[in-house]
Order: sequence, then C-alpha cells, then structure tokens
Amino acid sequence: MRPTVRPTGFIPPLCTPLTPDGAVDTRSLHRLVEHVLDGGASALFALGTCGEAVFLTDEQRRTVVRTAVEAAGGRVPVLAGVIDTTTPRVLERAREAAGLGADVLVATAPFYTDTHPAETADHFRRVRAETGLPLLAYDIPSRVHTKLPPAVLLELAEDRTLVGLKDSSGDLDTLRHLLVALRRRGLDRRFSVLTGSELTADAALLIGADGVVAGLGNVDPAAYTRLHTHATAGRWPEAVTEQNRLTTLQTLTRAADPATMSGTAAAVGAYKAALELLGVIDCRATATPLRPLPQESVEEVRRRLEEGGLLPG
Amino acid sequence: MRPTVRPTGFIPPLCTPLTPDGAVDTRSLHRLVEHVLDGGASALFALGTCGEAVFLTDEQRRTVVRTAVEAAGGRVPVLAGVIDTTTPRVLERAREAAGLGADVLVATAPFYTDTHPAETADHFRRVRAETGLPLLAYDIPSRVHTKLPPAVLLELAEDRTLVGLKDSSGDLDTLRHLLVALRRRGLDRRFSVLTGSELTADAALLIGADGVVAGLGNVDPAAYTRLHTHATAGRWPEAVTEQNRLTTLQTLTRAADPATMSGTAAAVGAYKAALELLGVIDCRATATPLRPLPQESVEEVRRRLEEGGLLPG
Amino acid sequence: MRPTVRPTGFIPPLCTPLTPDGAVDTRSLHRLVEHVLDGGASALFALGTCGEAVFLTDEQRRTVVRTAVEAAGGRVPVLAGVIDTTTPRVLERAREAAGLGADVLVATAPFYTDTHPAETADHFRRVRAETGLPLLAYDIPSRVHTKLPPAVLLELAEDRTLVGLKDSSGDLDTLRHLLVALRRRGLDRRFSVLTGSELTADAALLIGADGVVAGLGNVDPAAYTRLHTHATAGRWPEAVTEQNRLTTLQTLTRAADPATMSGTAAAVGAYKAALELLGVIDCRATATPLRPLPQESVEEVRRRLEEGGLLPG
Amino acid sequence: MRPTVRPTGFIPPLCTPLTPDGAVDTRSLHRLVEHVLDGGASALFALGTCGEAVFLTDEQRRTVVRTAVEAAGGRVPVLAGVIDTTTPRVLERAREAAGLGADVLVATAPFYTDTHPAETADHFRRVRAETGLPLLAYDIPSRVHTKLPPAVLLELAEDRTLVGLKDSSGDLDTLRHLLVALRRRGLDRRFSVLTGSELTADAALLIGADGVVAGLGNVDPAAYTRLHTHATAGRWPEAVTEQNRLTTLQTLTRAADPATMSGTAAAVGAYKAALELLGVIDCRATATPLRPLPQESVEEVRRRLEEGGLLPG
Repeated sequence: MRPTVRPTGFIPPLCTPLTPDGAVDTRSLHRLVEHVLDGGASALFALGTCGEAVFLTDEQRRTVVRTAVEAAGGRVPVLAGVIDTTTPRVLERAREAAGLGADVLVATAPFYTDTHPAETADHFRRVRAETGLPLLAYDIPSRVHTKLPPAVLLELAEDRTLVGLKDSSGDLDTLRHLLVALRRRGLDRRFSVLTGSELTADAALLIGADGVVAGLGNVDPAAYTRLHTHATAGRWPEAVTEQNRLTTLQTLTRAADPATMSGTAAAVGAYKAALELLGVIDCRATATPLRPLPQESVEEVRRRLEEGGLLPG
Repeated sequence: MRPTVRPTGFIPPLCTPLTPDGAVDTRSLHRLVEHVLDGGASALFALGTCGEAVFLTDEQRRTVVRTAVEAAGGRVPVLAGVIDTTTPRVLERAREAAGLGADVLVATAPFYTDTHPAETADHFRRVRAETGLPLLAYDIPSRVHTKLPPAVLLELAEDRTLVGLKDSSGDLDTLRHLLVALRRRGLDRRFSVLTGSELTADAALLIGADGVVAGLGNVDPAAYTRLHTHATAGRWPEAVTEQNRLTTLQTLTRAADPATMSGTAAAVGAYKAALELLGVIDCRATATPLRPLPQESVEEVRRRLEEGGLLPG
Repeated sequence: MRPTVRPTGFIPPLCTPLTPDGAVDTRSLHRLVEHVLDGGASALFALGTCGEAVFLTDEQRRTVVRTAVEAAGGRVPVLAGVIDTTTPRVLERAREAAGLGADVLVATAPFYTDTHPAETADHFRRVRAETGLPLLAYDIPSRVHTKLPPAVLLELAEDRTLVGLKDSSGDLDTLRHLLVALRRRGLDRRFSVLTGSELTADAALLIGADGVVAGLGNVDPAAYTRLHTHATAGRWPEAVTEQNRLTTLQTLTRAADPATMSGTAAAVGAYKAALELLGVIDCRATATPLRPLPQESVEEVRRRLEEGGLLPG
Repeated sequence: MRPTVRPTGFIPPLCTPLTPDGAVDTRSLHRLVEHVLDGGASALFALGTCGEAVFLTDEQRRTVVRTAVEAAGGRVPVLAGVIDTTTPRVLERAREAAGLGADVLVATAPFYTDTHPAETADHFRRVRAETGLPLLAYDIPSRVHTKLPPAVLLELAEDRTLVGLKDSSGDLDTLRHLLVALRRRGLDRRFSVLTGSELTADAALLIGADGVVAGLGNVDPAAYTRLHTHATAGRWPEAVTEQNRLTTLQTLTRAADPATMSGTAAAVGAYKAALELLGVIDCRATATPLRPLPQESVEEVRRRLEEGGLLPG
C-alpha cells in the first residue's frame, strides 16, 4: 500500500466538460484543473456527483481520471469517484482508477439495492483491499437513499479501511456525534472529514471538519480556499462573510425554471455555463438525458457572476 | 426493427445462479431455464432485480444474456434488463444485449441522479432508438426512487417508444388509471402491462394486466402459469386460491432474521436456497456484499417447500 | 360492551358540508345521508379524512356525529373517526363519539410523534377499553406517516381489540399477507377488512376484503353498491366494468390545477362541488386553510358528472 | 397588539412533568422553571415537541401554560406551542394560550393533511390575526412531514405575520439561504431565527441564528447559556468545546434499547429521568402510549450525568 494520503483543505469535485456531442473534452478539463489549482485547491476530486460520473461510460470515466492525473502532474493528489451499484462493479471501477494513477478512491454504499450495515461495511472493506489505495466513504443519501451509519464509519475508521468521509448528507447533527466520537477514540488525526455542503462549509469546519468539497468551487475556487484559510486561522467572522457571499453566488443554480428540468440539470448546467462564461471550458453541454440550460438562464448565470465580482459588470 | 414482441403470460425474472466464488454458473442457469419452461413460462426475463443484475459486472451480464438466449433456443422470447444509472450507460447495455440476441429490452428511469419527466421520456426514446428492439419500461420506485409518471407512459405508448410496462411499484391505484386511459385511447392491445407484484397477480390480472413477472415464479413456475390460465379463463376464485397458496409459500423470503441482512439478501437468498433444495441449481450463493442465508434459514425454506407440496414432507 | 357490529359492504366516508363561513351545515349533512342511503350504503363513516375531520374543532366534530346518528336513525350503523395525535386525546374523542351514539370507532396510530409497534398496540387497546365500542384500525400512512404492522393487527384481531381494519395504505401486497394470515387463524369471519382505495375496490374485494370505504362514493354511492353486489355475487367482469367507470369519474378530483392548491383541497373540493351540482348539499366550501375550487374547475367537475351520467349533458 | 417580543438567547422547550397516573405535575413544573431560570434561560417554551404537547389534552395544555406563566412571574417571556392539525383547531389553542398570558405563540404548518405553500401562508396569517400575539413558525419536518418553504417564511417575515422561526429541520443549507436573504432585505433585526438542533447550536449561531431551543437544555441549561454567551462574544472555540461536551451528554437519549420503544419515549424519557435524578422533578413518567424507560436505562442516564459533571460520581 502507498503511504496514506489524508485529504484536507478545499477539494473541488471537478465538473466533466463535454463536447456538444457528448464526448469528454479533455482540453477543457485541463484548463479547469489549472483554474482550480490557481484558486488554491489542495486536491482534485474527479468523477463525483457534480462531475456527472453516473452519466459517463466506463471508457469516458477512464478518460476523466487519466486527464485529471495528467493535469495534476503530481502537484496535488487526485481523488477518484468509483460510483457504481454494488461491490463487484465498484471493484472494477477501483482497479481502473488505481491503474490510471488516482491517489485516493471515493465510494458510496451500494445503491439500487437495499443494504444492511454489515453488508455496507463488507463492501468498503473489499474495495479497500482490492487496490490498497486510501478510501473515502461518500455519504450522499439524496442519491444512494441510505445514510451511512456512524457506527459503521467508526468501525471502518478504527480498522483503517477508511481514511475519511465525504459527507454530503446535510445532517450536521449526526456528523457532530461522529466527530466527537472520532476524537474520543483518538482517530480524528488520521480520519479526514470533508463536508460536501457548499453553503455551510464554515459551520462544518467550525465543528471539526477537515476540508470542503463544494461543486460551486469549480466556479470560484479562490473563495473556498479563502474560506478554508480563514477557518483554519480561527477568523470565523471572515469565514462567515465569505460563505455568505458564496451563498448568494450559489443562487445561479436556480437560474433555470425548476418546472422544466431536473435539479441536476439546473445545477450542473449552471456551473458549466458559468465556467463557459468565465472562459474556462469551451462548452456548457451536460450529459444525456439532462435538459440543456436555456439561453435566458445562461444570461441569469452571467448576472450572478457579475454580481459576485467574477465577471466585469 | 424486428416485428414487435408483446410480452404476456407468466414471465419469470430469472435468478442468476452463481458458483461459490461468484462466477455465473451457466450450467445451473440452463437447468433453471428448463425448470421454468417446464412450468409453462411464456418468456424469460434475464437481468432483472431478482436476477441480481446490479451485482454483476458487464462481462457477467453478457454471460447471462448469452446463456439465456442459448437455453431458450427460440422456444420463447428473452427479455433482457439493461439496468444502469443513466442513458449513456444504458445504451451500452442495450447494444450488448441486442447483440447477444435478446428479443425485448427492459429499462428503468435514470437513478442515482434525480430526473425530470421530460428527461425520463427522452431516456426511453434514446434507448428505443439505439437498437430498435421492443422496449419495456420498468417501474420500480423502491429501487429507482422515482415513480414513472402515467402521463409519460401514455405518451411513450402512443408514439410506440414502449411496448409495455413492468410495474413493480405496488401502486395499483395509479396502474388502474393507466389501464383505463390505455383502453380509452385504444392502446391496450399493443401495450402490455406486466405486474411485478408476486402476491397480487390475481388482482392485477383482474383489472387488466397482461402478464406476471414474479420472483417466486423461479421456485414454483407452474403455479403462476396456473394462476394466469385461471385468470385468462375468468376462473377468478381458482386464481385467488392459487395466489393465496403462493402467498403462504412466499413467506420463505422471511426465513432469515431481518436484523442480520438486507431484504434482498433474504429474499434472493431464499429463492436460491429453494432452487438448490429442489435440485435446479448447484449453489445458493448470492453476490457480494449480500450476507449468505444461514443454515437454519435454509432449513426453514425447506419446511416451506414441504408445506407447499414442492418437496416431499 | 354492545354486541359487535362488523362493518361490511359499501360505507361512504361522509363529506362534512360547511356553510360559507365555515360552520357545519347540518341540513346538508342530513341530505347527504339520505343520498348515500338511497344509493345503498350499508353504514356511514363520519369524521374520516374525506370528512375533513382534522379541520374541525371538537365542538364541530360533535355536531357531525350527532347529526349523522340522527340522520341514520338506526337504519344503518354509524362509524365515527376519532382522529387525534395520541392516546389521551383520542380517548376524549372516543368518549364524545360514544356518548353521541356512534356504533363503531375508527382510530389511526399516533401521529406527529413517532411510535413503536408496542406503543401502537397499547394505543388501540386503551381506546377499545375506554368505551367498549367496536374499534376499527385506520391504516393511512400518507397522513400518519407510519404503516400499521401486520403483526400488530393480527395480535389485536386475535385478542378482540379490533373488529377490523380500514386500509387506506394502497399496499395490497401487505394486505394480501394479512388476509391470508387472518384466514389461517380463523379470524376472517370476525375481523372485517375495508379497503379505502376507491380505484381498486374490485381488486381488494377479489382478494378477500369485506367492504369498501370510498370518498368518491359520496358522489355516486349507487355505483359502489353495484360494484360490491357484483363482487359478492362473483360477477367479476361486471365489477371491473363498474370500477373502470368510477375510475374515469374520479378524474374530477383533478379538475383543479395542482400548482395552486393541495391535493386535499382539490379532491375534497371536487367531491363537494359535485354534491352541490347534484343538489345534495348547499355549498361546496371546504375548511380553512384549504384553497377554494375555482369556477372553471367547478365547470370541469360538471362535465365529468355529465360524462358519468350523473347529470344530464 | 402587544409590543413585539423577539425571542433570542437560550430558550428551553420545557418538559411537562407528569404524575405516575398521567396528570400534569404543576409543582414539579414550577421547580423545572426555577431550574432553567437559574441556568440562565432567556425565555420559556411551553408545549413544544419535547414537552409532549401532542400527548396532552386541551385541559392539560391549559394547565401547562397557566403554570409556566405563573412560574415565570414576568421574569422572562413565555412562548406557548399551539400544535394542532389545522387552522380551526390551532385558532382555538391560540385563543386559550393568549387568554392564559402567553407572550409568544409557536405554530407548525398544518399536518395530517397535505398542504400547499399558499395554504400554509394563509394558516399562519390567520393564527397571527386571531390573537395579535407575536408568532413563531415551527419548522419540524420530522413530525409535520412538510418543510416550510423559505419563500413563504420570507413573505411572512416581510408582512410581519411572523416574528421568527424555530428551525428543527436540521437542514442548515436551507437555513443559510434564508439567513442571507433576511439580511439582504434588512429583516434580520426583527425576525428571530432559533435553532432547535441541540447538537449544532454553535454552528447555527455562527451562521446567524439568534437563539437556541434545545431539549437537552432542560437537563443542563447553564451549559447552553454558556454556549450562547461564548457565541455572542465571538469565542467560537469555547462555544465548540461546550457543544462537544453537550454532544457527549446527549447520548443519554440512547440509554434505552431502540428495539423496545419509540425515539420519543427514549429521548423524553431520558430527559425526565435525568431531571428526576437531579431532584428537579418528582417523577419521570411519560405520557401514554410511550413505553417507560426501564431501570437499567435510568442507571445509564445516571452514569452520563456523572460523566457530565452534573451528578457527583
């Protein structure tokens, strides 16, 4: 096994730029990596939910990991999502990502199927054993429809199956119990808690989270880096001010009429429209079958970028 | 496009027999196909939920479809599940299944992601266009976490995207509205409604369903065939009596303690244990990370088979 | 304790007519009772969900029970809902209804609070003990947000706490298990299962339900009586035809734009508009804060009544 | 209308002490009020979820409000929950609480019924108009099964229907959007946001909440007061340390085996057992049908109090 990478800091869940006909746009992805590294990202997270991982074929996923690893060029570690329904399929994704040079793997509990805590624990243990790479558990009940039980996470922290947690559950009360329990067992130094809540990163850092994975950080990575730096330095009012500003900026994800497309289409579409407007990626296309963002919504995204000081008004 | 196959009758969602080390046991699968055809199955459904499709790698899925098509030998059509998260991935599964000789494809709405009705409709249209094979929509909210909107189903029945619906929603009220609407539009003759509710097949057939896809039918296919025959002949009391008997038999899915494994592990494990006890398959192993059925539960399954007259007491 | 009344047949969950300023309109309620008795109702169910029970003060609820008992005049039994959050409050409602002459009480599990099966069982036992009246359990997870566990229902059928179940869960698979279990224990003759699914009464009766409680039966009681009579006589195709016709009629509950009011406002508002159009009640007002049905929706309800042959076209 | 009371600070949601036979124990309630005022409470909240409001008859609720008002004796304002299913019933509760001297009312959205945002807004407007008392909206989706839409809250803050929000949703992301929007509209000074999350009060205060309503504050009011004071003074590390300590203490709510009683029975039972052990109330009885805390769980509660320094070890 490689020496463990324990992720902390601001880690953008990279959007996956696509060409108008749905291919991975590797040139744009290279530019996106430079954009977030310029903004202070401490690592890259490829193939997360925001990266439309579940809309990409296995071949496309390999292209994304290969490109992210190339683009990172060893400057920062690359975390790779290995999102698939169950263990046998996740093991394939894990081998592929490891073979392409990913530094850390990120896996959810099984989905589509129901799962028992003992089965979920076994799942993570097998993924960890398959490649020897550090493994983050990805808790995202809105997609997976189960919540990772804190007792399972503690067990898998204790036995070193997991190097950390990406918590996209929005359930800060349960996270609090976990953070306190990790500390009581002396595990908080080797187990990394990353919040996936882009609007309450300040709060999560206050209570003990180690890092932030925020989709909006594709658009404004420097702000999340500032937020994290303020928090680390104990400058909480400044962290809050930065987060409040980002909360306003994040309303760009509502630029589209929710009666006309899914929330994913609206949010990822808006991030990509922003990146196109900022000149980072060539095309704002999202994957099939997501509805495209209409032109008036793109204009709305532009106004939010102007308001947020990211584009000249 | 091939001439449309409109599925009706009893169609077992085939279990996928595995070897103790998790490989697809094609010999056992051949025997299972003979078992259900002896029992009167009018078609085969490979790679459904009961077939542990989401636990199989793409290579294993191909093996299952290839084997089912070989075993069917043209005697009955083969329906193949193409269960994956979103359109680009389902299109791959669809091409593979079509290339291996499947007669009908069965697809769910996108999952893991949220989806808008217009996106869901687009999804089915693309899958249908990809191969030209007849396409069944698979409505299974307990897994996919959205329900297929009746308005979308009607639209896709009208424009011939879909040849039918496998309804595993358990929502008979909504199905009633759909069935009445199909009839009012004259679509009921070309759109096939299959119920996936193994305990209320009689009720679904009464209100207008055309066929039954019941996991328990792996174990006792002849009973579901009798039930369907009674229903078709209007012998409703006899259909009910058969369904009541099957309801008692189905309690074998509760042979395991629900505190120790997932519902899928208990149910699929029990079907496979029954098939092993009946001498149809060699091994009751289920896929990773499902917990195995303990020996005392296997004995409980044996008792239910004896009670049900499927094994000598 | 009085001799047990075991409810069967068609039992309308009476709408509660209101005056324009929100008082209970007892004259209209008297006429509604005549309307459903003319239509063949075998009993009356006052203060159910369709009767806006949770929108009425305790004083108004007493008025409703008193009026229903008077209007029934001993011709049919009166079932009274005692819907409130928990045991101490339901006991008050139960004493009041019993004192006013109700023949049977209908209670849900505790709501607003979470509840354990043992607590739910204790709840029903205390309600039963309080008045000695026959007690029906009302299973309506869409409102109460828990489902009555079949094991609890069986236990309470066995020990005579419950005389039956009103099943508004829409979960026919679970109901099937219950019906088969009741029969195996010889309890089906003294425990009455009433379906609350107004679109699948035929299916529920086929599999063993004893009666039908259908909100739409306020509007067209004769049709539900015919449906029940056909079912009892084993004329299943005729029962299905009647139910299909009622399924079309039931689309009047969608006369209002779902973007503008709650489903309850639309459905109860439509039933009341239909009753006003049929001359049964004086005013279609619903309780606060339900939005009123707009005039164009009332016209739509009129068209559905004409189509359904209940009003001259 | 009275001059508006805008609640801030630490406000305990008072437990309702009961006698062994289920009557309100007013003497113990008086002592509980002294306990929390000694601990620095800035107001009292009677008849909340933790106060078992939905388990109390209207007469018992009046006793609770009357006692709380007497015990407060004008030293701090008394907030009174008016929890009932819909507007007509909540109006009755509101008149009663106002008549007994409550200073602020706290109401949820309608429950048991479904509700449209326009209906929910109308509901709050009518409650506000009925008594003229300041009104807090109580957002508790785990009980009410809808979430108060931020747009409705903003509208009702703008038109002065609401003086604030008690947020027990656990959804800090949505709260963040609301807090930022209130500030942008200049409403944050007159609209008070109270968090009901007893484990993340520090986080909620950091992002802009004005006060804390924490059930655990019945047991250790001084700690929540310290937490709030630290937060107000910008001593965030100290606030976090206090909250971490309270997080450990809060595990007393898990002293009972979750397989044997509801979460409410376990949590409220544990708070009451703690108060009995601390000598504040006479009896730890909870309302019907909640299961009582067994003796071994009471001993576990005692150990947690000792660990927490609230009882000598």
